[in-house]
Amino acid sequence: MADHLHPIDIIIAKRDGKELSGEQIEGFIADVVAGNVTDARLAAFLMAVFQRGLTSTELAYLTSAMRFSGEVFDAALAPGAVNVDKHSTGGIGDKTSLLLAPMAAAAGLNVPMISGRALGHSGGTLDKLETIPGYNTQLSMLQFAEVIRKAGCSMIGQTERLVPADRILYAMRDHTGTVESPNLICASIMSKKLAAGLNALVLDVKTGSGAFMKTEQASEHLARLMVSTGELAGTRTAALITTVDQPLGRFSGNWVEVWECVDIMKGIRHPFSADLIELTIALAAQMILLGGKAATLAEAETIAHEVLNNGKAYEHWLKMVEAHGGDVRVFDDPAAFHKPAVTRTLTAKRSGYLSSMDCTQVGWAIQRLGAGREKPGDPVSAHAGLTMHARLGDYLEEGAPLVTIFAESTAKADEPARMLLATMEIGDTKPHVRPLVLKHITAADVA
Amino acid sequence: MADHLHPIDIIIAKRDGKELSGEQIEGFIADVVAGNVTDARLAAFLMAVFQRGLTSTELAYLTSAMRFSGEVFDAALAPGAVNVDKHSTGGIGDKTSLLLAPMAAAAGLNVPMISGRALGHSGGTLDKLETIPGYNTQLSMLQFAEVIRKAGCSMIGQTERLVPADRILYAMRDHTGTVESPNLICASIMSKKLAAGLNALVLDVKTGSGAFMKTEQASEHLARLMVSTGELAGTRTAALITTVDQPLGRFSGNWVEVWECVDIMKGIRHPFSADLIELTIALAAQMILLGGKAATLAEAETIAHEVLNNGKAYEHWLKMVEAHGGDVRVFDDPAAFHKPAVTRTLTAKRSGYLSSMDCTQVGWAIQRLGAGREKPGDPVSAHAGLTMHARLGDYLEEGAPLVTIFAESTAKADEPARMLLATMEIGDTKPHVRPLVLKHITAADVA
Repeated sequence: MADHLHPIDIIIAKRDGKELSGEQIEGFIADVVAGNVTDARLAAFLMAVFQRGLTSTELAYLTSAMRFSGEVFDAALAPGAVNVDKHSTGGIGDKTSLLLAPMAAAAGLNVPMISGRALGHSGGTLDKLETIPGYNTQLSMLQFAEVIRKAGCSMIGQTERLVPADRILYAMRDHTGTVESPNLICASIMSKKLAAGLNALVLDVKTGSGAFMKTEQASEHLARLMVSTGELAGTRTAALITTVDQPLGRFSGNWVEVWECVDIMKGIRHPFSADLIELTIALAAQMILLGGKAATLAEAETIAHEVLNNGKAYEHWLKMVEAHGGDVRVFDDPAAFHKPAVTRTLTAKRSGYLSSMDCTQVGWAIQRLGAGREKPGDPVSAHAGLTMHARLGDYLEEGAPLVTIFAESTAKADEPARMLLATMEIGDTKPHVRPLVLKHITAADVA
Repeated sequence: MADHLHPIDIIIAKRDGKELSGEQIEGFIADVVAGNVTDARLAAFLMAVFQRGLTSTELAYLTSAMRFSGEVFDAALAPGAVNVDKHSTGGIGDKTSLLLAPMAAAAGLNVPMISGRALGHSGGTLDKLETIPGYNTQLSMLQFAEVIRKAGCSMIGQTERLVPADRILYAMRDHTGTVESPNLICASIMSKKLAAGLNALVLDVKTGSGAFMKTEQASEHLARLMVSTGELAGTRTAALITTVDQPLGRFSGNWVEVWECVDIMKGIRHPFSADLIELTIALAAQMILLGGKAATLAEAETIAHEVLNNGKAYEHWLKMVEAHGGDVRVFDDPAAFHKPAVTRTLTAKRSGYLSSMDCTQVGWAIQRLGAGREKPGDPVSAHAGLTMHARLGDYLEEGAPLVTIFAESTAKADEPARMLLATMEIGDTKPHVRPLVLKHITAADVA
């Protein structure tokens, strides 16, 4: 091969901060997927990228090379509609995907959504969906397209054949300490999302104590990289920077999150779901706007409220679940389907304002309750999780209920209970609570 | 193991520019040598070091960890004298080691010199010594000590058991594009040299067209790193920055370089050996000064001249060669022992001053003549090489002899002849010729 296409020359060029050509990046990723690059060279390349960064052109080529490294979803299989999706960098109690897919479908868009599983302190949409008896998350691309044709939306898991380059690169980053690179995070997320053949994509980039990106600055940097990369790939892309200072909505867990969404789509408005609805409307409006179903953001917000309130989103939800083989009868009385062995309510140790919590610790507590997993492949409990009885800034009397936890045994409840009580601070002064949505990043911001 | 000693945490700390502790560096290198670190993690570590650099303390720990990764030469095996050595970063026609070892021995020092082989455009001391019939470069540490006790000096090849960490790290650097790191170059050179248990070490850091470091700045940077690292290891260390703008001395090759040195030690002064003698005296004086055999540099230079001129260095040379099993009768008439199949003299294509050459190209021409090797393990010719008939700045008439090449066949002479004629520029103006020794770097310069 030509010298400039040899892996060693590509490593050296990036090592020295030179810009790689599209031919070099595409050739390197193709070689990686074909098994022609040693682990050591891939590791050296990733560390060089970590240190030297990528230009927006290099990042677009890397993302594209990864996106097309395996099977992609061909939008032609579900014709006649605009394909849109949403991606979140991971919150606590964040179940917006379950609402957004049927809402966007109800607004006349297609939603080919490929989701992930819980890992570490983060939950996973697939684990939530799989609490619905019969729901099959492992569809082929043809089955995926068929569900979308029927329901306007489908939510599946990643297949082995989709974006193999990302699996290889991610495993190597995890092994060599190169996970926390904004460029590599962007390429990983965007290659998987764009492999679904999207016309538009809305990104929910989290910031705060429960997010991977702790600072607003780091979150905004990643958001800009992703919006730029999406736009360069021809996908209309926007991002919201949103806070994870406390769990989102009423419930955190697996089935309990489905329950909360079903209630909302049925028109039930629990006060602790208010923040979830606020974020869902903001994200849905972006999907509707970028998907071309509204001329202004205000109009898009109106449509988002309409489909949630008039039962159309719920219709699409039921169609989608049925098309995936799920038993929709469990939605008749979601509370009755919720069967944790242990339910324990933790109370305020003193009077005062709920002033702060380390939301990552809350995520770990949920994982240890049994709702999440420590390593890929671990089983998860359908019914473990928690429900909040107070929001940041609420005043609590000593002994008032703070949070109720659900677990499959007393043993599994003890450590999480300690973790939650340790991290939830009650103070004398009313804390400043940040808004949920901090910022919008659009194509104009990265042009 | 403790978190901060896990390879992944060491990689991440260096990735983020943090200073590693001695415990971390020693643990990591021990793990590498024990085979407990994957190739990918070693590659990521090396690229992180390449990008982030090392503090002088980290570099001292890395060098020490590598130095003690295998067998070391115990100075107690050859007691009663100060152990000194010289290392060069690699010139063209540089045979100073062959002179310096017996000279320093004649001055009352021990020289436990562990040398390398020719590779690429660079020659190797071992290949030169092995042209002497019977000379055995593969001695055990005990045999090495015995030769030093007899002759004051011994020149051997690296054993498998010496500095295994360097072999592992160097192979990985070569594989992953992390060779050209001053820190890693320093650790590689110094770990091998210090494994010989030196009291003093003189470094000849080359600069110019024939050197690995092309600029004086890069050479001085490496020199400072090495002097600092040597001093931190308790070895008195100094460096000379010297130019490689043309081949050093009269001959370049293998046997021809031994011949040139034997002539000098016998008192024969060929005019084209003047630069070689100048550099040899400068380096020998540093060895004698740092080895404590002279109070001032001037006194050390006087001693260096004396031992070269009074036959004492030649006596030690003969003793050393005999102790290595070499047949010293070939030194009686070195010219007669020189038997290349092909001898061809290249002449000036026009009249003018010999104004410049790319000395790396000259090195490659010597390699292609058969004196060097393209990859480790290739055989080398004893008699291939060249002799210069002009120095930079000399005025040549058209047709005057420029260089005579020696090869084992006509076929092997053709390409090198073209390469040499192509790189040697003859111009109308007398060029500026840089001095051989540009700068001294001592402990005081890096304190």
